[in-house]
Amino acid sequence: MPRPSVRGKLLETALEQFQAQGFNGCGVQDITNAAGVPKGSFYNHFASKEALALEVLEQYSQGSRPDLLTDETVPPIDRLRAHFAFLSDRLEGWHFAKGCLLANFGGEIADTNPAVREAMAAFFERWVSAVGVVLRQAQVQGEIDARHDPDQLARFLVYAWEGAVIGAKVMKSRGPLDDFFAVSFDRLLARPA
Amino acid sequence: MPRPSVRGKLLETALEQFQAQGFNGCGVQDITNAAGVPKGSFYNHFASKEALALEVLEQYSQGSRPDLLTDETVPPIDRLRAHFAFLSDRLEGWHFAKGCLLANFGGEIADTNPAVREAMAAFFERWVSAVGVVLRQAQVQGEIDARHDPDQLARFLVYAWEGAVIGAKVMKSRGPLDDFFAVSFDRLLARPA
Repeated sequence: MPRPSVRGKLLETALEQFQAQGFNGCGVQDITNAAGVPKGSFYNHFASKEALALEVLEQYSQGSRPDLLTDETVPPIDRLRAHFAFLSDRLEGWHFAKGCLLANFGGEIADTNPAVREAMAAFFERWVSAVGVVLRQAQVQGEIDARHDPDQLARFLVYAWEGAVIGAKVMKSRGPLDDFFAVSFDRLLARPA
Repeated sequence: MPRPSVRGKLLETALEQFQAQGFNGCGVQDITNAAGVPKGSFYNHFASKEALALEVLEQYSQGSRPDLLTDETVPPIDRLRAHFAFLSDRLEGWHFAKGCLLANFGGEIADTNPAVREAMAAFFERWVSAVGVVLRQAQVQGEIDARHDPDQLARFLVYAWEGAVIGAKVMKSRGPLDDFFAVSFDRLLARPA
């Protein structure tokens, strides 16, 4: 296995630190200490902690398995379920100690770091759009109620998920995620009678 | 009008600062400067910034009009709508620059400040319980589908709301709140046919 680059190590460690401590709760030195690299090397790779946060967000986005939503060999609602199941298993693997980086940054620094807010908005838009495509396909295939507005429902589900993640982090339990699955899939997205 | 006490001024200012900057984004000095009181006076009133945060949470809870949920002169679902309408108007009045203190603290410090996490968990439990009472009454009165589990639906709605608030803060728009109203009230809580 190749050794991770200093840059890769910083990105990986920063994701952990941002999720555990928040953006303002950890400094560049905390990140370089945790990554085991000299503080001086940080600025060879990133102009600022904010620049690092933007790259961490991008990497987090790639790691959230958006491909599960676009795998057209799987029926639409099964795809959506697989996507959220991946996310909930990951949170459980983290013992609900980290949460979703979007929700964490959204609550903490949406107002103080405009560049991060814009990157988050773009992330949400891509995610909502991918979920909207799945819901439109589900509707065409008769899997969900024809009365739904698929784009609105996509926005609702993505933000409801973020809230459930906050709930799981506060309650230290997967209960809020299980409630999300039950109400979303068994009620809102139930196959029409 | 009586002049607010130093303690009252600190609580009020701290709520604003915590919502705008996050818990770690502002120090005791930022709060005392913004409140226009000497830093030294802070510790006459609060043992720590965390102790202040706990009182701010309690005051925030009282200010979120839980009474709108318990006003039994109003039909249950109208009560629920009035409660969320109060919260969304307040967010709009803040120009979506503050968000819900629970979601903000939940994302930022649920893991680093156990006392704050416990206070948030208790806040969510009270809130969910009050919404659950309303939903049970709505069900008895035939306002909503008899198949819902009212407690589960209450948890889902409260966390979905928190997610919508994160969305509004990131998108700087009431769109995510409007989507919450549309999907929750027109779909999930629609009067049975």
